[in-house]
Amino acid sequence: MPESHPFASQMRRLIDAAIVAGTPYASMLLDAEGNEIALTPNRVKQEQDPTSHAEMNTIREASARLGSADLSGCHLITTCEPCPMCAAAIFWSGISKVTFGLSIEGITAAGHRQIPLKAAALLKHSRNPVEIEGGLLAEEVRKLFPKKAL
Amino acid sequence: MPESHPFASQMRRLIDAAIVAGTPYASMLLDAEGNEIALTPNRVKQEQDPTSHAEMNTIREASARLGSADLSGCHLITTCEPCPMCAAAIFWSGISKVTFGLSIEGITAAGHRQIPLKAAALLKHSRNPVEIEGGLLAEEVRKLFPKKAL
Repeated sequence: MPESHPFASQMRRLIDAAIVAGTPYASMLLDAEGNEIALTPNRVKQEQDPTSHAEMNTIREASARLGSADLSGCHLITTCEPCPMCAAAIFWSGISKVTFGLSIEGITAAGHRQIPLKAAALLKHSRNPVEIEGGLLAEEVRKLFPKKAL
Repeated sequence: MPESHPFASQMRRLIDAAIVAGTPYASMLLDAEGNEIALTPNRVKQEQDPTSHAEMNTIREASARLGSADLSGCHLITTCEPCPMCAAAIFWSGISKVTFGLSIEGITAAGHRQIPLKAAALLKHSRNPVEIEGGLLAEEVRKLFPKKAL
């Protein structure tokens, strides 16, 4: 997928944020006008919190900032396809659009354990359709995983 | 399911905690020795956080208390069957046993929206088998839902 993708610059920023945080996982939320509301990495190890995936942190931070559990109209951009925990959080928050880099299959191939359930399989149950696009800068994201696992 | 169930008293306490919190959802975590590590209700409305389900709060609080993202050996007891967000959090935390009251089908019938995916369908992917039992005091839990929805 080309650098000319409309959200390539945001994905590039996420990749940089992930490198700084020492994880392959980072995500951000844009509001309906395209304003950045939150940008967070995975913090499971640092916080010893198994729920501290990048997308969960982004959703929690964005909700706190907006003062609302309803994030309908918002767009989540994330380096890796949301796992079922994060996909269900997207469902509950009403996020309207998801753009990700590396797929769950790609994460697994890169050596990280995953639950083999696609985000789309969960989000098809959403009240309002969720637009999902994967593969943005996926090869760059793949390089975030430890070399030994490749 | 009878009051003589080994975890009926814990479920009774959860039902009481849910009533106090004004929600049908409350959960607790016991460690491998049966000690209570955390007991929390759903706080989505109070905190305007879409991820603040009872089980998520219990897992986060227990991990903080134990200083570990690894909750293997622990037992989660919850008034309602965990949704896919919470089931995946159980997966990531390594919790070994889950006991719930009302099923996802029962929650839906009681008027609350759910993602139609059983906790067992997610947890079958766990590295170590997760023991799951549902239906404990389910009729009592059902009464926690607003009457208009019944």
